[in-house]
Amino acid sequence: MSLTLDTQQQSARTWFEQLRDSICAEFTAIEREAGSNAAFEFIKWERTEEDGSDGGGGVRGVMKGKVFEKVGVNVSTVGGTFNPEFAASINGAEQDPRFFATGISLVAHMANPHVPAVHMNTRFLATTKRWFGGGADLNPPIPYAADTEEFHAAYRAACAPYGPEVYEKYKKWADDYFYIPHRNCHRGVGGIFYDHLEIENDTAFDRHFHFTRDIGQTFLDTYPTLVRKRMDQDFSEAEKLAQLKWRGRYAEFNLIYDRGTLFGLKTGGNIDAILMSLPPEAIWE
Amino acid sequence: MSLTLDTQQQSARTWFEQLRDSICAEFTAIEREAGSNAAFEFIKWERTEEDGSDGGGGVRGVMKGKVFEKVGVNVSTVGGTFNPEFAASINGAEQDPRFFATGISLVAHMANPHVPAVHMNTRFLATTKRWFGGGADLNPPIPYAADTEEFHAAYRAACAPYGPEVYEKYKKWADDYFYIPHRNCHRGVGGIFYDHLEIENDTAFDRHFHFTRDIGQTFLDTYPTLVRKRMDQDFSEAEKLAQLKWRGRYAEFNLIYDRGTLFGLKTGGNIDAILMSLPPEAIWE
Repeated sequence: MSLTLDTQQQSARTWFEQLRDSICAEFTAIEREAGSNAAFEFIKWERTEEDGSDGGGGVRGVMKGKVFEKVGVNVSTVGGTFNPEFAASINGAEQDPRFFATGISLVAHMANPHVPAVHMNTRFLATTKRWFGGGADLNPPIPYAADTEEFHAAYRAACAPYGPEVYEKYKKWADDYFYIPHRNCHRGVGGIFYDHLEIENDTAFDRHFHFTRDIGQTFLDTYPTLVRKRMDQDFSEAEKLAQLKWRGRYAEFNLIYDRGTLFGLKTGGNIDAILMSLPPEAIWE
Repeated sequence: MSLTLDTQQQSARTWFEQLRDSICAEFTAIEREAGSNAAFEFIKWERTEEDGSDGGGGVRGVMKGKVFEKVGVNVSTVGGTFNPEFAASINGAEQDPRFFATGISLVAHMANPHVPAVHMNTRFLATTKRWFGGGADLNPPIPYAADTEEFHAAYRAACAPYGPEVYEKYKKWADDYFYIPHRNCHRGVGGIFYDHLEIENDTAFDRHFHFTRDIGQTFLDTYPTLVRKRMDQDFSEAEKLAQLKWRGRYAEFNLIYDRGTLFGLKTGGNIDAILMSLPPEAIWE
């Protein structure tokens, strides 16, 4: 990749890649504990601008294991020029369509229906403006109040240093976002969702970058605990079927409503990386 | 249902219900030939207008058998008032938002990956204008040129009495419509798609109704033949997996692009009837 990154862009990218490596190591360790030799397969992909120039790319990591039926971790670092129609809808790109984006996105669909599925994504964008965004949300096919509380408590604690209202605001944003109108239900039990933490100055970069690192670190500290707690729990055929049916709802949300998915599909992104979030198997009755 | 139907509306509705009965009888006969006792389950659903008045309803028929892994046949007869925003986008409803619609829609997902999946839908709509629309298209996970040709030949013959250009025009319409831009491929091997066959006078009603009946009858004369030809063909585990993966594409098309699905989801239709088209099982790698 020949994109030239400035200091902020490089710092963000390096963190997302480090976080990816830590998460993959932890998830692989869980597979070992379950007696499986599953490993992540990493596939590089490159992005070319319409004029043929280098548009960056990414690495898509996928593991299909005994505990993680399918987990995808994608780190992408891309840059170029939005098409004019699209630029008009993007913060800071209305006048100048050049952009840069780096981020990590992760979705895990679990073999055991008692173990919650999960989604986590954090990103740094630069147009004429710069900002961080992201979040994490828990998607249990069979919800347990204790797990939900543990996940939310971790993010409540992660948000606390940044202001008393931060957690409630971002929790509500997740509740509003991860909603399936045609089913009149939420995709999961929520988490946090934030966007447009704008970098007006270097202090703001440090603060928002720190917050984004905390969100990622909290994921790493919390989710594996939930997985280990439930991964050996017995499940029935009926519970597995309920999970597969529940995954149909998950696919519906991602294909009909998710802005990231539509963004990717409509701007010619890497299909396999964009649709990595879809469940390995789903049923509709 | 207390909707009052005029002669045209009643004639169309009666035909769609007769066609449904003939198709269900034929599909059930195929299950018997395969030694299965599978039967259609019919579920009535009702639609209520926002003001609480009767909005019609329908019957959703589903069979899960040995040959038909899942086949859904929905006949609905609904009427009422479009919301103003939606009315603006519908032929003849711009000034007067009242509407009536009756139609049959069918999707079959087959157990054997050598047997093509299929979709067929015909409908009669009335706003201040009246028209027929519909079509049928073949969706083989493993395409066979002979089956594709047999299906298209039947529709070519069905269209021929209505003008030399009719088949080519409606075939192209299906090719344009059943396309998945983000995968750069078609959903299946096509068929025909038509819409807005407007009723300017009673002669037009008779002609367009006759055409719509021919399209339905052609389906009944053709698709069961294709099923019987392939239903006993051996298949490998790899071929079944290829089918499940192919069904992921089918779900993507229906959830992202299909106008009928989005129409239903965004106007508060019966969810189970709208999403009847989704595959019983799909995988994403």
